[in-house]
Amino acid sequence: MKSFRKELIFDLPVRMGFINITGEVAAAVRESGVEEGMVLVNAMHITASVFINDDEPGLLHDYGVWLEELAPHEPLSNYHHNRTGEDNGDAHIKRQVMGREVVVAITQGRLDFGPWEQIFYGEFDGRRRKRVLVKIIGE
Amino acid sequence: MKSFRKELIFDLPVRMGFINITGEVAAAVRESGVEEGMVLVNAMHITASVFINDDEPGLLHDYGVWLEELAPHEPLSNYHHNRTGEDNGDAHIKRQVMGREVVVAITQGRLDFGPWEQIFYGEFDGRRRKRVLVKIIGE
Amino acid sequence: MKSFRKELIFDLPVRMGFINITGEVAAAVRESGVEEGMVLVNAMHITASVFINDDEPGLLHDYGVWLEELAPHEPLSNYHHNRTGEDNGDAHIKRQVMGREVVVAITQGRLDFGPWEQIFYGEFDGRRRKRVLVKIIGE
Repeated sequence: MKSFRKELIFDLPVRMGFINITGEVAAAVRESGVEEGMVLVNAMHITASVFINDDEPGLLHDYGVWLEELAPHEPLSNYHHNRTGEDNGDAHIKRQVMGREVVVAITQGRLDFGPWEQIFYGEFDGRRRKRVLVKIIGE
Repeated sequence: MKSFRKELIFDLPVRMGFINITGEVAAAVRESGVEEGMVLVNAMHITASVFINDDEPGLLHDYGVWLEELAPHEPLSNYHHNRTGEDNGDAHIKRQVMGREVVVAITQGRLDFGPWEQIFYGEFDGRRRKRVLVKIIGE
Repeated sequence: MKSFRKELIFDLPVRMGFINITGEVAAAVRESGVEEGMVLVNAMHITASVFINDDEPGLLHDYGVWLEELAPHEPLSNYHHNRTGEDNGDAHIKRQVMGREVVVAITQGRLDFGPWEQIFYGEFDGRRRKRVLVKIIGE
């Protein structure tokens, strides 16, 4: 069994945003030399997500609006978590809705994807440096 | 390490619906010959889900009602995504809530499940042909 | 390829609660002897979750309040599922939002985690004995 590990680094200039990271994950799969296996891609921080959906700007806008309704950033006093001095209580909830990780099949050395699947990094408490882990196992 | 891949095909006659696919996944596990490992089951489309819960008709009804409240199909103008000419902005959100994939342990050649766990395909923009990927690795 | 399997048992005295299980999962990883691989941790019951977030009491309180708003326990008649004689229709929905499982990378024999990642068992219909499955594959 082969294994391979890589970290991706992000530092978004905004609180909430989405970045297509499919190319970077595909490059890691090639670099790993794994032909048949699985790749785990997960946020290493608990106010960020990795998820798979469509790369369409209107959709990414809709996710932002919908998440803000579901768990508004303000008032900060809505969240007991913010009593610690943080202001990101909402971000922990948004990340939970969108998910921490994806697992993708590797077949014949490539991400085994449907026609529109793209991997995104979702940031809900940006303006700081964060990491995504890519871990590959297979043969 | 062994690996095995299979696609399941669905074409639901309705916009939203749920199908128990446990039998088809269990058959793929048997066909793979893997005794110890993991099976990844994921929707290959971004308006559909694979998830695990109870096969009880009332519960599946409740999921439908709750998701429709959380991300209503109409008015279509609620979603910027629909400005592309699509009418499935809601379906992308519903799928995100229910999840893209499950990973299930394989132990002694079988799905390693609790007493009520069943695997479902969740469709949120049906009336078209869609695929689910079953990928198995192990020994 | 090595594989390893362990069950963790929980019996919470309340309907809804969260327990940090990182130590037990880390112990299973050590016991497995796997240096490079993946660990799957999943609830074996469909009214419970396994998820990763921050071990901060205010945050866990916020999750409880937010989930209760999203899918209130009462009135029981809100859920068709409760017509079966159950009273846990809400718990099936809460578990779906928080997720069934996590997959974590194992690197150099340890959980490959970011600085604040902790694994939680989330109970939404407690006061009964339930199980979590830890399944490890790798080398």
